[in-house]
Amino acid sequence: MNTKRNIINVGLVGLGTVGTGVARILKSKAASLTNRTGFEFRLKTVCVKHSGKKRALELGKTKITTDPRVILNDPEIDQVVELIGGTTDAYKILHAALSKGKDVISANKALFAERGEELFRLAGRVSRHIGLEASVGGGIPIVKALSEGLAANRVSAIIGILNGTCNYILTEMTEKNRTYAEVLKEAQAKGYAESNPSLDVNGTDTAHKLAILARLAFQRKIDFKKIRKEGLVGISPEDIFHAKEMGYTVKLLAIAKTEGDALDLRVHPALLERGHLLANVNGVFNAALVRGDEAGDILFYGRGAGERPTASAVVSDMIDLARLRRVGVQPHHRDFKPAILHPASQTYSRFYLRFRVEDKSGTLGRLTVMLGKHGVSISSVHQVAAPHASSVPVIMLTHRANEKKLFEAIRAIDRLPIVRQKTVVLRVEGE
Amino acid sequence: MNTKRNIINVGLVGLGTVGTGVARILKSKAASLTNRTGFEFRLKTVCVKHSGKKRALELGKTKITTDPRVILNDPEIDQVVELIGGTTDAYKILHAALSKGKDVISANKALFAERGEELFRLAGRVSRHIGLEASVGGGIPIVKALSEGLAANRVSAIIGILNGTCNYILTEMTEKNRTYAEVLKEAQAKGYAESNPSLDVNGTDTAHKLAILARLAFQRKIDFKKIRKEGLVGISPEDIFHAKEMGYTVKLLAIAKTEGDALDLRVHPALLERGHLLANVNGVFNAALVRGDEAGDILFYGRGAGERPTASAVVSDMIDLARLRRVGVQPHHRDFKPAILHPASQTYSRFYLRFRVEDKSGTLGRLTVMLGKHGVSISSVHQVAAPHASSVPVIMLTHRANEKKLFEAIRAIDRLPIVRQKTVVLRVEGE
Repeated sequence: MNTKRNIINVGLVGLGTVGTGVARILKSKAASLTNRTGFEFRLKTVCVKHSGKKRALELGKTKITTDPRVILNDPEIDQVVELIGGTTDAYKILHAALSKGKDVISANKALFAERGEELFRLAGRVSRHIGLEASVGGGIPIVKALSEGLAANRVSAIIGILNGTCNYILTEMTEKNRTYAEVLKEAQAKGYAESNPSLDVNGTDTAHKLAILARLAFQRKIDFKKIRKEGLVGISPEDIFHAKEMGYTVKLLAIAKTEGDALDLRVHPALLERGHLLANVNGVFNAALVRGDEAGDILFYGRGAGERPTASAVVSDMIDLARLRRVGVQPHHRDFKPAILHPASQTYSRFYLRFRVEDKSGTLGRLTVMLGKHGVSISSVHQVAAPHASSVPVIMLTHRANEKKLFEAIRAIDRLPIVRQKTVVLRVEGE
Repeated sequence: MNTKRNIINVGLVGLGTVGTGVARILKSKAASLTNRTGFEFRLKTVCVKHSGKKRALELGKTKITTDPRVILNDPEIDQVVELIGGTTDAYKILHAALSKGKDVISANKALFAERGEELFRLAGRVSRHIGLEASVGGGIPIVKALSEGLAANRVSAIIGILNGTCNYILTEMTEKNRTYAEVLKEAQAKGYAESNPSLDVNGTDTAHKLAILARLAFQRKIDFKKIRKEGLVGISPEDIFHAKEMGYTVKLLAIAKTEGDALDLRVHPALLERGHLLANVNGVFNAALVRGDEAGDILFYGRGAGERPTASAVVSDMIDLARLRRVGVQPHHRDFKPAILHPASQTYSRFYLRFRVEDKSGTLGRLTVMLGKHGVSISSVHQVAAPHASSVPVIMLTHRANEKKLFEAIRAIDRLPIVRQKTVVLRVEGE
């Protein structure tokens, strides 16, 4: 084997948490990586924001610059790893790197979900590769599994818990009966949640990851903006308590299902039966259940974020792209047909409903009649005693109902004078 | 892209359950496979035992032979898929195929575990590849994950449930309080267990798979014969019941852990805390927990056997090897150093002990004193009332104890006149 040929020069843009992790692995595991893969990865240049900053990591012969062009214009650099985040500069860097014949790797889910197609098309045109394992599920090799390990499968569904912050918040609320605000504050203090957690808790981050997985699994262009999403806001300890009483756990789910030729894509909190595999994924952990026509249900579980897991995924991409450099086939970068999205008006689910109504006879009857008029039938009712209150909570689980009609029913119900609060609606999934 | 160059001619030896599954995927998904991978897989020749047999599958232009040499001597054939099982003929076929410059794929765990090294060495010498994804975990892409997705990790442990038959038996015993013999008989009737299930229930099949995973994860030659193994025989409903009472589930585990420079490799039933991820893997499902220094704990879960999951893995290997055909690097076929195995005398575990002793005062004291003499201390004792019997069961959980010393203590205890039955010893894992 020609050793010279097996040197891979790497340019790293961004030396934050994950970038530092990547640099550390390349330095501390150089020998074992070469041993395992036959390639010698050299971190030739690192582009940072502030060149003077003191760093924990000894970079040795690696050149440090503040100008990404030093990397982009270096003909010796084979792979560019982008870890600065954002969708503007990061896009420009990946675009320029591909144009110059470099393979690129990034953990940037927002970029791939929102502007990925242009980059995939460019990669296909210039016969270069894009590594995106680190953009979903941290150290879990889910991208590789979907694009390679399960390549013989027609996937019919992906159900995932893809945001560690949300899962941590829901786990704490469930196990310790705490409020959303309380747990979020603590998570921020501990560094599990960003100081601005809105992209996490409103479901955007989960939707980014869902867009990336769905593209790979269903081989369709996904219009990210069209993914229906609901976040954690509105989830109260009361709902988590009632769900628990009935044998369910509340999780923020990413769902992609085939419905005929269309794709049902959504992100929302949902009740899962306690025995469901995903119901037992707790804390900051992520998991994805993939349903293939050949392999059946496969679950992948692990840490979905953090320096070391994400860096692990980046380095596995570096190895992959080094191998693929000499292969012409680029299965993931094809120009897919756009996905047809399945409309809410044709989506059926079971629902959890929490009403707050006047405590007088006939109330339950009026609710069920109103639901029945919209084709929604009830599978169980749970009325909570509240001796000294003028209103009481009523919890219902419905049979499978049309989502659009259900929301029409709820709007009508919420206008009734016996109803004292906006009704809480959560889906029941996984059955 | 040169289309001609992308035709892959496949020879399939063995048209049993999995072979039929592979042929079916290649026929029914030809267009989608080409679309996804850029390769056109042509099932050129199939070697069967009886050429006249009526088959469910229409093989079209595929040639049928009863002589494997028709495949081995065909210079057009790029990949040979061996699915006949056994370690003699299968070995010869893979050896001959590699020698003739073909890539090979097999689901044969016994072959890879017992005679793999010779084949890996040969593959390295002739620069060809061996696909073995289908030999462990059915449709779960665990081989790919260990050898590629987690390549940046130093793995410190693998804990797996790798035999669906055993897991089905234990699940039924646990959930329905049935006996081992009863469930086994039913599993055979349903086709979940072989008519001769000894390789499954005595732990051999699990040990084969463990040998394959450990080799990949730890990059060491594994001497299969030296894997310590215990099977299901001896597990009684009584033990499963007591384990449950104390919050544990009994599973047949495959364990590979680093202990300094050595590897602790073993297969045995063990108690797992009910909340442990693997404790919730039920029925015929398989799972493996991999602990990497970068990625942390990652769990892979799915169907570990069956026509379709195993065929799914075979086809994913076909795609991989087609890609790798033009790449010189063969990371998995290196001639590894032999693993140093960690001896039982230096292994520490917690233990579950079930004694059957005379129902008289002082008995408990004698047991604890005897255990204490061998350095075994007790974390909990559970004495079961048996009003009309002359002997009673006593259940103990120990603190971490040296395995060798514990068995010495048990041998001494079993010689005491107060002891009425051979003591049952099970390990407690996963803490």
